[in-house]
Parts: sequence; structure tokens; C-alpha cells
Amino acid sequence: MTTSLDALFDPRSVAVVGASDNPQKWGYWLAAGALAGRARRTVHLVNRRAGALDGVPFLPGLAALPGPADHVVVAVPPQQVRPVVTEGLTAGARCFTVITSGGTSAAEELELAELVRAHGARLLGPNCMGIVDTTSELRLSWGEFPAGEVGVVSQSGNLALEIGRMLARAGQGFSRFVSLGNQRDIDAAEALEALIAHEPTRVIAAYVEDFRDGRRLARVLASASEAGKPVLLLTVGASAASGRAAASHTGALVSARATVEAVCDDAGALLLNTAGELVDTAVLLLSGVPAPGAPDPAAQPVVRRTAAEAVTVPAGTSNADTGGATAKPVASPPEAAHAAPEPLPGQPGTARPAAGPVGGNAPTSGATADAVPHRTPLRVALVGDSGGQGALAADTFAARGLGIPPLSAGTAAAVAVARHLTARAERGTPGNPVDLAGAGEADLGSYARIARTLLESGDADAVVLTGYFGDYATANPAQTDRECAVARELADAARDSRRTLVVHTMARDTPALAVLREGRIPVYERIEQAATALAAVARCRHLVPAPPPELPPAARCSVPDGGYETVRELLASYGLAFPGAEFVRGAEEAAEAARHTGYPLVLKAMGPAHKTEAGAVVLNIADEGALRAAFARMRAATGAERYAVEVMAAPANAVELIVGVRHDPAFGPVAMAGIGGVTAELLADTAVALAPLTPERARALLLSLRHAPLLTGWRGAAPVHLDAAAAALCAVSRAAAEHPELSELEVNPLLVHPDGALALDAHGVRAASKIGCVG
Amino acid sequence: MTTSLDALFDPRSVAVVGASDNPQKWGYWLAAGALAGRARRTVHLVNRRAGALDGVPFLPGLAALPGPADHVVVAVPPQQVRPVVTEGLTAGARCFTVITSGGTSAAEELELAELVRAHGARLLGPNCMGIVDTTSELRLSWGEFPAGEVGVVSQSGNLALEIGRMLARAGQGFSRFVSLGNQRDIDAAEALEALIAHEPTRVIAAYVEDFRDGRRLARVLASASEAGKPVLLLTVGASAASGRAAASHTGALVSARATVEAVCDDAGALLLNTAGELVDTAVLLLSGVPAPGAPDPAAQPVVRRTAAEAVTVPAGTSNADTGGATAKPVASPPEAAHAAPEPLPGQPGTARPAAGPVGGNAPTSGATADAVPHRTPLRVALVGDSGGQGALAADTFAARGLGIPPLSAGTAAAVAVARHLTARAERGTPGNPVDLAGAGEADLGSYARIARTLLESGDADAVVLTGYFGDYATANPAQTDRECAVARELADAARDSRRTLVVHTMARDTPALAVLREGRIPVYERIEQAATALAAVARCRHLVPAPPPELPPAARCSVPDGGYETVRELLASYGLAFPGAEFVRGAEEAAEAARHTGYPLVLKAMGPAHKTEAGAVVLNIADEGALRAAFARMRAATGAERYAVEVMAAPANAVELIVGVRHDPAFGPVAMAGIGGVTAELLADTAVALAPLTPERARALLLSLRHAPLLTGWRGAAPVHLDAAAAALCAVSRAAAEHPELSELEVNPLLVHPDGALALDAHGVRAASKIGCVG
Repeated sequence: MTTSLDALFDPRSVAVVGASDNPQKWGYWLAAGALAGRARRTVHLVNRRAGALDGVPFLPGLAALPGPADHVVVAVPPQQVRPVVTEGLTAGARCFTVITSGGTSAAEELELAELVRAHGARLLGPNCMGIVDTTSELRLSWGEFPAGEVGVVSQSGNLALEIGRMLARAGQGFSRFVSLGNQRDIDAAEALEALIAHEPTRVIAAYVEDFRDGRRLARVLASASEAGKPVLLLTVGASAASGRAAASHTGALVSARATVEAVCDDAGALLLNTAGELVDTAVLLLSGVPAPGAPDPAAQPVVRRTAAEAVTVPAGTSNADTGGATAKPVASPPEAAHAAPEPLPGQPGTARPAAGPVGGNAPTSGATADAVPHRTPLRVALVGDSGGQGALAADTFAARGLGIPPLSAGTAAAVAVARHLTARAERGTPGNPVDLAGAGEADLGSYARIARTLLESGDADAVVLTGYFGDYATANPAQTDRECAVARELADAARDSRRTLVVHTMARDTPALAVLREGRIPVYERIEQAATALAAVARCRHLVPAPPPELPPAARCSVPDGGYETVRELLASYGLAFPGAEFVRGAEEAAEAARHTGYPLVLKAMGPAHKTEAGAVVLNIADEGALRAAFARMRAATGAERYAVEVMAAPANAVELIVGVRHDPAFGPVAMAGIGGVTAELLADTAVALAPLTPERARALLLSLRHAPLLTGWRGAAPVHLDAAAAALCAVSRAAAEHPELSELEVNPLLVHPDGALALDAHGVRAASKIGCVG
Repeated sequence: MTTSLDALFDPRSVAVVGASDNPQKWGYWLAAGALAGRARRTVHLVNRRAGALDGVPFLPGLAALPGPADHVVVAVPPQQVRPVVTEGLTAGARCFTVITSGGTSAAEELELAELVRAHGARLLGPNCMGIVDTTSELRLSWGEFPAGEVGVVSQSGNLALEIGRMLARAGQGFSRFVSLGNQRDIDAAEALEALIAHEPTRVIAAYVEDFRDGRRLARVLASASEAGKPVLLLTVGASAASGRAAASHTGALVSARATVEAVCDDAGALLLNTAGELVDTAVLLLSGVPAPGAPDPAAQPVVRRTAAEAVTVPAGTSNADTGGATAKPVASPPEAAHAAPEPLPGQPGTARPAAGPVGGNAPTSGATADAVPHRTPLRVALVGDSGGQGALAADTFAARGLGIPPLSAGTAAAVAVARHLTARAERGTPGNPVDLAGAGEADLGSYARIARTLLESGDADAVVLTGYFGDYATANPAQTDRECAVARELADAARDSRRTLVVHTMARDTPALAVLREGRIPVYERIEQAATALAAVARCRHLVPAPPPELPPAARCSVPDGGYETVRELLASYGLAFPGAEFVRGAEEAAEAARHTGYPLVLKAMGPAHKTEAGAVVLNIADEGALRAAFARMRAATGAERYAVEVMAAPANAVELIVGVRHDPAFGPVAMAGIGGVTAELLADTAVALAPLTPERARALLLSLRHAPLLTGWRGAAPVHLDAAAAALCAVSRAAAEHPELSELEVNPLLVHPDGALALDAHGVRAASKIGCVG
């Protein structure tokens, strides 16, 4: 397999079938691109019609080749694809890139892939835009592919071209580009693995519509992070419209955005929204200084966590008071940290940052004795040419969750000195943003002095210049040399400090900006680009990449339906607590059951999922008379055959949660927890993670809710039993994972309170028709 | 006054004091800029030192001028400013632009402004970057100011330069630029008025840190909207850091972002976040086709509303069931509409769109018989070169609240025809996004055919091309003419349809893009630019600009304190309902009072604002024994001198609101309504508007809450009495407006229920020390 992919990216010989000398045709661009690598490999051009390109004559078929062709690119009409591939296999081809699209069914394409694999060869496509490896001079595609350090895997060729344009404008480009097409053999996961293993690729970008085996992809994303090559991912499906588009485009099922987001967070991948955001973030990651999440040399060493521990916890939620059997710290204690002491630098080309404080010498780093990772915002120091630009930048950064902390007194004083060396006297103490207030105009060196002061201060994880720098020479060419020298000083300051420096400038393509880019300083035309890129990197700086949880084998017996009675029994067998209940058919039976449950009680009709609206649940029934009356009304309203008579549970200080699992076609069971109650839909406060959950992951999921403070003792109330809540969530997630016949499983509400967790209602949706037990 | 501003923007003569021949100095740029207008006006250059620029000799002082100088630009050291201005006044100058910054106190600057005004002249600055009018060849500033149709008023010079760079890249530029500086005479509002009256200015951009008289500015913003010249506003203060920056930069108080946002919404101004967003939106507004909010020619005519009616209401919240004394439709009924039948086009240069449906011939426009404006999203049809780019665009647009509706069957068929004229056969029915799937490559004309089909379909308010168009000639120069011709066809299609066409392209500066820009088609490099600009314009397309409410005169008597007893009495006098209560000092008195209120009752200690935590409130006291026990505990806990014994109010189906008014230093009293209860802080579901509110505005404010469905009958519950809730909000807002001595006034909770609204607690903060009555 690995050999085959070597042949894909760096074959000893290439044949382009369908070569053309007409620049309007794909066959021309493929042939011309292949010929550009002639110094490194043999290139054959094949076309039934005679002709030549660049002195290389077209041969009539693969059988006519004077020698073997490792890699065959196929750009012929659909009905000719299979004959060409067959001929190629006979001639000993080891891989095929099939550009041709359409004209064949999915079944025919799968057969083709099967045929190729049966010969020990590999297939890229069909319906793809080809493959490029700028490090091996392989250009089997159409369009411009500037060379650089970004490896791109894409289900959309045009999107890759767009990424290429933006990378080129930022002075970057592609190491490899793999157009996936219909993924009949080589898929996104395998292509990503090839980029992870490819040394010159330092950052990986992927556009994926169809995740196929989502958990396999998640494992690859995590391994990329661990290898220090974070994957920047674009996908679709956030809106109904894009779902339509993806379905019509590839016939692929689009995974729900929230699931992909959770998968990325856990795997340490960065999910972005547009090609522009992706390129801006890639450029930041490729900067010559450590990524903002990298541990400070002064910080304590940290450890990689297992999948179960790959979580982050908001500050102030340790909830130590609630104790409980499964309580333990989310991250490893300091002693464990010393057991695996290698501190992991966080920039591409090295391994990803592990959870831990950044800027350990800073007072706001949030490092605590128990090493629980906190969500401290990335601290940015802003330097503006003008107060207005600095202030707008501050708002733009704050809106994305980045911190703009005040400068420490020492730093403020040092900045004041750096600024006052040249400038007017009356500016007062520098804040953050630092207002240069003319210091730059008075002496360009102020930029470098102030940036260095801030970079070395420990007050900030990143320093951002905003405004004019880079453009001085435009109005006054005599300043060119000086501005370029200062640009070099800025790059030096970033390199020396090992912290991140970013420049936003109104200039474009000036000599000073070229110097900055040579020095690997990210340069952005718009302040929002800088903010979005820093926020993307900051998002996962406290997370440790972890592979997805293993799916347990399906249970021996499937459940017959998704009704309350069945699901209650199932979940109870996984340890979930329900109020005492008896199931009855008539009023007499109900009255009899009430003698066991006692009053007040709850009467429920079996059947409707939304019981409140359907009149299918009555709470707080006080006595037998009320029970009989309620029963009569409910039978009339619902016509149900069976009813539950349940103990009325109303624990004090309870919070209603909604907990469920949905089977995603790509990622399998996905667990969801949210704030419940009648306003659940309005709150829309939910969080998801791949099932089954560990207690730690379940706990972290609950604590990631916006309304998590309700769980941890809001305004003097007793905190709920978080471990019991987490255990309940685990039970539901495991039940769903072991019962794939339930496409949905939901507990609503799950009442969590200071002494435990209680499921008040539950139901499921049975997807498959097969009922019964295995073996 | 008007004459003076004419002299500011188009003087017959200009004198630059502090002129220089050294390009490193401001005096050089001012002098060179002034000389560029020599064909239109007399230019004098003044410097004590002899010299000359471009053949014009420096004169030693204003007294030495051979004739008058209408407009004097002052760029001299601080201590020389006043002598120069005095000399200029003597010489008959009618306005001064003072670049000089620093060295003078605010008092000295105000004195200078007073002196200037006393002579009937006007002052811009000090500490400003000057003034530019490209339509009158006046360039009294530093930097590049490309000519165009955007008028810019800014408190930050650099930000204006940044805007200029971005405008130039989009083929646009400045009509006028006014740098406000310290606004000692001419302020933002007056400068904006000058741009509204300036015919060549079609769109206005403003960066304002210090709003001064916020209501006056709000009136100007509304008048700009009414004049069809929407103001695109940038301000700061969204984050603590930018607040620090603004304070240090100008000493100005920064208004809270939410207030400015509400003011902009009501005035029809567009509040944006960055210079880039502003320029992208300006370019969209300057497109040759109607702004997306403009009424369709086929739609019914609509009327302008008064301030009280300038509201928007989410769909489905008419709440007609609750009736009530003040109930009436938010917008005018159709009959009223016919009374003022002029349909108002919505693009710059004409008046702003009034509330009403867009695309009246479209099934999803949301037009209803009672003409209540609904928040239907702007409908966008997307056309992608590739499925991936289309799908990403759809997600990006949807994330900003834009609608991507499915195409109607007729439109889909027409697009299929337009696409199939050239392309492969198997693509299936076009959706939205439309996937070109190679049609563009096969025939560039597909772009124009499909765009025209969509623009004329009525299915969408705007059509967005995303991807490659504009770049075909780059790879194949032979296509240049054809691509430019198609670009012209695209512009024609937009013009003919009178709908919005936007192009996102990976190209930059190609001939086809120049053609598009000539045809006033907005062209963006990033899809998020298109989405943000369309979302900004869509945000207020259903709003009708309205001036801010008039502030009532202050009440004759101020209130002595902000305690519950005082505030309750005040608000009751404005008609707010409270539960029956008696105020007592001791347990005996409390027991006596309970004989009047009855049990159960509520006991409150007077004093603490957060009563629950302080043990200063006990609900549901059932009998005298419990009352005496509660009293003893409360006295011990709080040491309060006075207590309230209140009727325990617990109406069914009640929703807790929090209602308040805050006095903003710039905008005066600002009313706030939000969902209350113990989780209010976590929900953060609040809305604000300038006080005092009308019942209609109050109603709209409540209905704008995320949780508004709770008020209108959530999940089968009875709806609350919305008119009573609105009336309560009005009462609080009016009380605060008439009692400016209360810097804050809050009712929390306001219990709104199906039969009315009841204030359960209230307090205020007394700002001024003056207590008593006037006259």
C-alpha cells in the first residue's frame, strides 16, 4: 500500500492518457504539467490521434509504451476509462489518477477500484482534479500550484485553486495537493496519512464533504495533531442549503456541523468556515515563532492524555464538593506529569502542544496546583499607529474571545521608554492597545523596540501591530531601506522571544512586507483576518489531541421498539435510575399500582413522545379520586393501551437536562447533553461528543454548557451531583453505542440534583426492522 | 453657519500656515495638496522662514497675504496656534483647520473655538488630519485620497487612510473626508449633515469615538437614512480594552455597544466592526442595482412610520389574542399605506426603503394582510463554479442569517436549460446553490445566462457568483475578450433586473473584474466579505429610519434616594402595579400589617439590592408564627430599620422579566428589557432602546428577545398580557427619563402574566447629590 502511494506522489514514470496540444483541454494541462517533471522521471503522452507536445510524440496506447508507467493519468471519455485502466494494469501501472467524471455509475466506479486493487495497484478518483507534489516536481492537474509547505486534500478542485491563490498572495503554497474526487479507493483519511508522513508538509488543509468512516478520519486527525501537523478542516453542512448542495454534488451524506466540530476539538484539528480563514490560519501556524499554544520555556512540563482525558474544563468548575465514586481530576496531577516529562513544542513540524499553562511567568495564566486546564483566553498585546485602529482591533479580538489584558506596570513603563525615545511628551501611560501616537512617524525603529518589549514582557502570548507599518516607503521611497531594516528587526524580535508577532497593515506587496514574510511574520490586510486566525489557533491550545473512543460491539439482543417501557428497561440495565413505576392497562390496575407507589404520583400514557402537549402525562396526582379522573381523561385523549403509574419525584435544587444519542451516518453514535425543561429549544444550550463517553468526558461535556453554572451551585444553591449526572450520561451513551438498532435515544428530562440523577422520561427511535438476538 | 461650511469644503482661497518644502513634514503635504487645487482657488503658503514650493513663495504671516484667505490650515507648534488664528480672524478668514495637536489644554481649545465662533468663523480640530473634498479639488491632508462617492467623517486619520486604501482596491474612493480631531467646534453630527447635503456623496462612512449629544447624532443618522445616504458607522467600546484605548486617546466617554447598536437600528444606520466590513458594505450599497431592501416594483406601496412605529417584529408574534387597551398593529394597515403611496427605492441617492415585503412576487416574502413587517431573511441565490465553493458559501451566508431558499420549480427548470445549453447531461435538477459543474468552462456565457435567470426569477433578492469567474483569461489570454463580454452581460442582467448581483472570485485585478466594477457589480476576494456586506444591508431592510424619542423635561421634584420604598412610590405614580404592601419597623407592626395583606405574604428588608443572597427576602410566609420567626432572623441577618410586608403574588403562567433604564452619558436614558429570574445573567437575553418608549416600541422590544416565544404562548401556555407588559416598560422608561437624578432604575422581577404585569421589586441609583424640587 505504502509503495503504491509512493508511486502516486513520486513515480519513476508517468503516462498521460488523453494528452492534448490544445490549451482549452484538460489533456493539455496534464501533459504540460507532467512534462515539467521530465528531469526527474520518464513522461509518456498517449492519444489515439497522432500529435506531440513540447517535442514529445503522442503514443497510440499504453500497450505501445517503450517502458513501464508507474502512474497513469486518465483523461478520456467515460466509456474509455475501464479499457485504459485494464491496459495500464497489464502494462504494470501501480497507480491511476482518473480525471474523467460522469458517464459511469457508482457501482461501475467501485468495480473499477476493485479491479485496480486486485492488481495491487491504487486509484485516485474518478472525477478528480488530479495530484500535485511540488517537492517531487509532479504536476498532474490544471491551474497554478505555487510551491510551499501546505499539503491540501480536497473534494473540490476549485476550492484548492482558491486556497492556492490566497497562499501565493501570502508568500506560501502547496507541498502536495490531492484531489479526492469520488474516493473510490484512496480516501481523505489515507490521503491525510500520506501528508502527515511527508516531511516537507508542515500544515495540512482539507476540504471534506463525505467523511465515510468518520472515526477512522478522527483517528487520522488526532495523529496529525500528535505529529505536529495540525489539520485545518473545511466542511459543509452547517446550513440546510449546503446540505442540499453536498447531497446533489457527491451523493454523500453530510455530517452535522456540531459533530464535526466536537470531533475536531477532540482531535486537535481546526474547523474553519472559509478558504480565507483557512489560509490566514495556515499562515499563522507557519510563522517562524512558536504557535501561541506552545508551552513557555518557564512553564511546568505537561503530559499527553488518553482519549478519556482529552477534555477541557472551564475555569472555576472543579466542583470538588460533590465528591462521588467516580470523581477524579480531569487532567493528570503534577506527579504524573513528571512521569512523562517531555514538553512538546506546538508549532508545525514538531508535536502539538499539550494541555497546560501558557506564559507560565504571567500572573493570568491560570495554572493551578491540580493542573486542571482552564480556558484562559489567548493574551494579545496590540500596538496601533492610531488610537482608533488599536481600539477597533481590541473590539475585533475581544469579540472572538481573545484577551487584551492590561499591561503590567513594568511593561507599561518599558513601552513608555521605548516610545518616548522619539515622541511627544504628553501621551501618558501606555495601555493595551498601545497607541504609538506618532512614535512610528518620528522613528520607524519605535515599532521594533515596542514590539520587542511586549514580546519579551511575558504579558502577552502574541503581539499584533495594526495600521500603517509596511507602507512608509510608499509615500516616501527614501524610507525603503529603513523600513525594511525595521521589518527585519521585528522578525528578529519575534524569533528571539519565541512568541507570536502578527502584522496587520493597510499596505500590500511592499518591500517591507516581503521582508516580514521572509522572516515568517504573518501579514494581514484586514484586522479581522488576524483576529480570526489567532482565535482559531487559540481555540484548541489547551486541548490535547486524542483519538475517538472505541465503539463497543453491538449487544447480543436488539430492543424491539423505542417506547418508554422498553427503553426504560434497557437504560435501567445500564444503571440509569428511574422513579419507581408500574405499567397498567386500566383504571383498576392503576389504583392498585398506586398502593405500591404511593401518592402523589404521575400518570403517563404510553405512546406519544411529546407527552405534555398530548395530555399524556399528569403530574402530582394527590389521591385515588384524582387518579381515576386523570385516567379517564387521558384514555379519552390518547386512546393509549398502556399507562405508567410512577412515583412523583421532585428533588430540591434539581436541574432538568436533556440527554441523548444520535447515530450519525459517518461518526456513529454521537452523545448530546443539554439544558432541558420547557425552554430547552429556546436555550439551545447543548454539547456533543462521540459515544460512548467516559465519566471524565461526560463531566467535561456537562461543564462546557453555557448554563453549567446552574450545575455547580448557582447563586448559593447546592451544586448537583455532577458525577452522578456524568454517570447517567455515560450509561445512555453506552446503551446507544451497544444498540445501533436505535437510531436515536433520548432521556428528557434527566433530573440532576445534589444527591443524584433521575431519568423522568425516555424514548428511542428504532431504525432497523430486524428484531431479536444474535446466536 | 452653512456659509462657513461652504468655505470649509470649497473656499475661494486657502492659506497653509506652516507650509514646508520638506516631504518629511506635514506642512509639505498640506501645501502640496492645497496647490493641487490652484486651478480652482487662490493658494497662499505661509512660513516665517523664507522658501517656496512649486514656485509659490512662502509669506511671513497671514497679515502679509495679498488678499483674503477663506480657509486657513494651521500646522504650527502648539503655542503659535492662537496667534495664527487671531491673525487669520483679523484678515477675514472664515474657517480654520487646525492640524496641530497637543500642548494645549481642553479649556484652551474651547476658548479658541469660542474666539473663532465669536467672529462668525468656524474651526475644524484641533488635533485633526485635515479635510479633503475631491469634488472641489480641496486636499488639505496627508496621504492618498482616491476620488469616489464615499464621504468619510473620522476621529481617526489612519483609519480613514485604511478605508481609502480598501476603497481604491475596489475602484472607489472619497467624495469628502473630514478629520474631526478634538471636535471643539465642528463635530461629527455637523460634519455628517454636510455630507448628507453634498450631492456627489452617495454613501457616508463615520468613525466616532465620542458621541457628544448622542440623540442629536441619532437624529442626523436618521435624516441621512431618509435622504437615501445610509451612514456606515464604526465605533469602539465593545471590549474593556477598547474602552481603555478610547479613554486614553480622546478622554471621551465610550457609549456601550448595545446602545449604539439600538440607535443605529432605529436610525437606519449600519453599525459595522472593522474598516474592511465598512468598505465591503459601502461597495455593495454603491452597486448600480437597488439595495436588497428596496421594494420590488411589484410589491405594494408602503409608508414611512413615525418614531413610535419604527420597529420590527419577528414573524409569528402578532399576539392578537391578548387584546388590551393599547393593542394595535405595529405597522400601518394597507389603507394607511395607500394614503402615502410613493414607493421608496432603497439605494443611495434616493430615500431609504420603508418597511415592507421585498420581492412581492415571491412566495416566501412574508407579506401578510395586516402588513406587519416580518424578519424574513434576505433571500440569496448562489451560483458556484464548484459544488464545494457553493456549499461553503451557503454555510457562510446562513451563518449570517441570510436565506438560501430552494429554487422554485420554474426557476430550477430555467436554470437547467441555461446550464444544459452547453454542459454535460447528467447533472440533475439545479438547487440553491446552483452547481455550474463545468458549464462555465464549456461556455462562459453560462454565467450570464444563469445569473440573469436567477435575477429575474423573483426567487431571490440577491444573486451571488462564487468561485472562478474573472480569472479565465489569466490561464488563457485568448479568452480575455469573451470574459469581458460576459462580465458586461452580467452587469446588464443586474441592471435590467434591478436586483443585486455580487461576484466572489479568486482572481484579483483582471480585465473582467474591471468591467464588472465599471458596471457597479461588487467584487470580493473572499466569500465572507460578500456575506458580511449582504448581511449588514439585510439587517435594516425592514426597518424605517426614525429619529430618537424626545426627552421629556425633568420632573419638578427629584427623588431623595433609590430605595425600594421611594422607587415603588415613584413608579406607582407612573401607573406600575405592585402587590399591596405596608412598611414597618418592628415585629408587632409587621404582624399588624399582615392583618391587612393577609397570608401567605412576603417579608423584605429595606436596603440590600440583591435580596435573595442577603437573606433579606422571605417568600410565602403562611402565618403569624412564621412571620415573627422570619422577622427575627431577617433583622439579625440584615440589621435593617424598615421592612415591607407584601401580598404574596404568584399568578399562573407568569414570566419573570427584568426591566430597567440606564443613563448613558451620550444618549441619555436607555431602556432595557430582558428575561429575568435567577438565570437572567446566564441567559443574557436583553434588548435596549432609547427611553422614553412608546407602547409600540416597548412591545417590539419585548418581542425582539430570543425568548419572546415564552411571552406569546409557549407550548400551549396562555400568552402573557403583552400590552400590560409594554405599558409597564413604558412607565419605567418615562419615570427614568423624567428623573435624570436616577442614573439607574430597575424593576426586577417584573412578573408578566396572562392578566397583567406586576412589579415584585424595584430600586434605583441616585447619581446627583441635589435633592428637592424646582421652583
